[in-house]
Amino acid sequence: MSRSRTLNFKIISRILGILLIIEGAFLLTALPFSWYYSNEQTFEFHFFDGQHDFWPIVVSSVITFISGAILYFAAGKELNKVISKRDGYLIVSLTWVIISIFGALPFYLSGTIASYTNAFFETISGFTTTGATIITDIEAMPKGLLFWRSMTHWIGGMGIIVLSLAILPFLGIGGMQLFIAEVPGPTPDKLHPRITQTAKRLWGIYVLLTVVETGLLMLGGMNLFEGLCHAFGTMATGGFSTRNTSVAEFSPYIQYVITLFMILAGTNFTLHYIALHGRIKDVWKNEEYRYYIFTILIATFIIAGTLFFTHQEGVEKSFRDSIFTVVSIITTTGFVTVDYLVWPGALWFIIFLLMFVGGSAGSTGGGIKVVRQLLLFKNSLLEMKRLMHPQAVLPVRMNDKPVSQDIIFNVLAFFLIYMIIFAIGTFVMTFLGLDFESAIGSTAATLGNIGPGIGSVGPVGNFAHIPMIGKWFLSFLMLLGRLELFTVLILLSPAFWKR
Amino acid sequence: MSRSRTLNFKIISRILGILLIIEGAFLLTALPFSWYYSNEQTFEFHFFDGQHDFWPIVVSSVITFISGAILYFAAGKELNKVISKRDGYLIVSLTWVIISIFGALPFYLSGTIASYTNAFFETISGFTTTGATIITDIEAMPKGLLFWRSMTHWIGGMGIIVLSLAILPFLGIGGMQLFIAEVPGPTPDKLHPRITQTAKRLWGIYVLLTVVETGLLMLGGMNLFEGLCHAFGTMATGGFSTRNTSVAEFSPYIQYVITLFMILAGTNFTLHYIALHGRIKDVWKNEEYRYYIFTILIATFIIAGTLFFTHQEGVEKSFRDSIFTVVSIITTTGFVTVDYLVWPGALWFIIFLLMFVGGSAGSTGGGIKVVRQLLLFKNSLLEMKRLMHPQAVLPVRMNDKPVSQDIIFNVLAFFLIYMIIFAIGTFVMTFLGLDFESAIGSTAATLGNIGPGIGSVGPVGNFAHIPMIGKWFLSFLMLLGRLELFTVLILLSPAFWKR
Repeated sequence: MSRSRTLNFKIISRILGILLIIEGAFLLTALPFSWYYSNEQTFEFHFFDGQHDFWPIVVSSVITFISGAILYFAAGKELNKVISKRDGYLIVSLTWVIISIFGALPFYLSGTIASYTNAFFETISGFTTTGATIITDIEAMPKGLLFWRSMTHWIGGMGIIVLSLAILPFLGIGGMQLFIAEVPGPTPDKLHPRITQTAKRLWGIYVLLTVVETGLLMLGGMNLFEGLCHAFGTMATGGFSTRNTSVAEFSPYIQYVITLFMILAGTNFTLHYIALHGRIKDVWKNEEYRYYIFTILIATFIIAGTLFFTHQEGVEKSFRDSIFTVVSIITTTGFVTVDYLVWPGALWFIIFLLMFVGGSAGSTGGGIKVVRQLLLFKNSLLEMKRLMHPQAVLPVRMNDKPVSQDIIFNVLAFFLIYMIIFAIGTFVMTFLGLDFESAIGSTAATLGNIGPGIGSVGPVGNFAHIPMIGKWFLSFLMLLGRLELFTVLILLSPAFWKR
Repeated sequence: MSRSRTLNFKIISRILGILLIIEGAFLLTALPFSWYYSNEQTFEFHFFDGQHDFWPIVVSSVITFISGAILYFAAGKELNKVISKRDGYLIVSLTWVIISIFGALPFYLSGTIASYTNAFFETISGFTTTGATIITDIEAMPKGLLFWRSMTHWIGGMGIIVLSLAILPFLGIGGMQLFIAEVPGPTPDKLHPRITQTAKRLWGIYVLLTVVETGLLMLGGMNLFEGLCHAFGTMATGGFSTRNTSVAEFSPYIQYVITLFMILAGTNFTLHYIALHGRIKDVWKNEEYRYYIFTILIATFIIAGTLFFTHQEGVEKSFRDSIFTVVSIITTTGFVTVDYLVWPGALWFIIFLLMFVGGSAGSTGGGIKVVRQLLLFKNSLLEMKRLMHPQAVLPVRMNDKPVSQDIIFNVLAFFLIYMIIFAIGTFVMTFLGLDFESAIGSTAATLGNIGPGIGSVGPVGNFAHIPMIGKWFLSFLMLLGRLELFTVLILLSPAFWKR
């Protein structure tokens, strides 16, 4: 590690430049869909008319590409390629902000989203794989833009996989060190080869799963456009749909396929890697995975049972609505097939609690994460034993190995800061005029990168009615939650900027 | 410390016996008020008629006294006086349950509270200094019972002072060790002389403050009965009033007096001891105290300002309503002068957040406690520094001294368990049919020993409408909260009962 005290702005500029160039290229993938679904099949220049997306996408791509090139070359030729931890924090946070700033351009330039605030909210909601939307009539959007909207999820998910399995453990964030040992790859003290190798392996799985899901969705009657968009939304645990009523629009078969792939997307991708190498037994040895599956089953069982007995729904529909909703929330995807707010209070309170669980670490899921919950729960139980035997050393064990005090400490601090931010967020939203439930709901849903919350931002609502300042604030919460709090918060501490 | 593995049931029986005998004696203090305010001035035997309280109180006292004597003598003559930690946990938890079981008798025998469930709820609400009530028409109650009701607060408060400053540090509960050094008294490894000395000193202060407050309230026009009842409710941070509209019934002078004494009751009693010995400067050196006062001032300032500008209330009334409510909630007293639920959402959300702060450690206030919040907050900030300097040892400092990792760990676990119980509690209450706000409100208000919450158990509501099973559950939450969670939870762990 470099111990240099000044930030390496050149390498930061270089990396951000590369990322913007890649984003510019990705933007072009929306063009075939724009062209194919264009009603008029003409390519006249239309901007800000709320209906055409071809040229706005092209121009956005060019602007993004050129900006990227400028940043790339601004770094100069003589480049110190050593990236310090501090550089790392800054690069990660800046990445999500900058790709959102440019990614919002097509929405704005086409005029389909009239205010830039809304366009930015929608885009960062995409890249952070949140899926909170401000669009009321989704089906009226040009298809090229809808494709780009889902693509932001997919790109965000790719970023998160590398972030959580290669970069955050290196930065020492919130217990992510726990997974270093499990990730196949070189030793964790060299960032660059580690990222490259990890990315290759895990992105391969990510792409594979996306392709398989798209295929299965198309078998169920979706066209390529909808299949890809929903597969993007699933694998990134994003939740943007192409339909106004989200996945409620589709057949039970499709709902089951999406449920299955949401579960896969909320699983530590290292486990997929292990499973693909035939070591299925080792997957089940992973405590987080067992706890994750167990939580899904228990919650589904309680909710499905209650729905069956109180709502007179059939067994299959009770089960399907329950498991879809439970999985959608716990993985922080946010697809919707049913308005859970009309369920009895105790049921949607379970859903609300699941918003604080989150996916597995090393998955694309957001939130607090299953492994942290598990550590905290185990530690709380141990604390009773510690009280009775103050002399005994009783470490928390995970996967049969003792977990160091430092990690427990970090995880506890993470949970606490999460709760503090949740409280502050709710306060800000009530201050902006939201009712109690909506304030709680919008904060929990954005901080946890879920999408729909409770109250007016519930499963049949959206974020359009939030005041402008609230949208910027919630965008910040999405960023905070997605980057595991510390990555962003550390930039706000004076110590970070001291020399 | 004894390392004996079996519980010393004899000493447990002896101590509980003594406490019941004392309770029987305290019950008699209600008789003068019963006699004085009795409309008929006759002493015919009346039970279960909902109007007479003299003989029900006498009989309750006798039953309690005799039960105490039986427990006392059941312990036998040959007594091992060594009290182990395990004995300590059991004694503390059993104490609050048993004195509530007997303390509920006069309400039940008089018929003024028809169901024993309600009578028990009201009594444990008193002894835990919660102040949550199931009585709709308080003013219709016989005065002797109202006096006993407030007396349960006062007795509970006495218990809490000794518990938090002498017993819990000894048991190692939730950071209470922090105060060992500050408490004047012998070394903490000998429980018995420590309790005796601490009790004498601090109860003296408690009695003194109660007498002074009663006097000041009587100067404001209260009679002795109301003065004592409100002083009991204040000093214990309980919150039972003798009036249906609580303290809203009284003059601004009385509201200010009660505000002042609530602040004093929510202060570490060791600081009163220090102040009475002329070391005023040392009081201000106490970080928890500064943070406590600071929180009150900030919250009052925000709320008073907003009320002044939005509600067109006068400056004085805005200030008075704000500081009274802020202090009443943060100290977990729960007296009411205004319906804060009609305030703008952001304001009552501040009130709601204050429910999770609680009084100072070593005060009669309940909840999480200011010092724990302060430790957690400091530790969270430090965690950022730790991330950037992983090699550096950065302990949290309190009152200029480093705090051991063990204590931080314990406080973090305390906070986490508090939140888990809060979530479970809210779930149970929604399951019993309460709406979201009322479920959250009733859980926060009982677990934090506050009294009024939000929703249907708000400042102008009460707990009468809660289903029976819910009342037993909330009673359990009051006990949990009051005894700092671990004291009770440890009894539920299998490890406690092994051999």
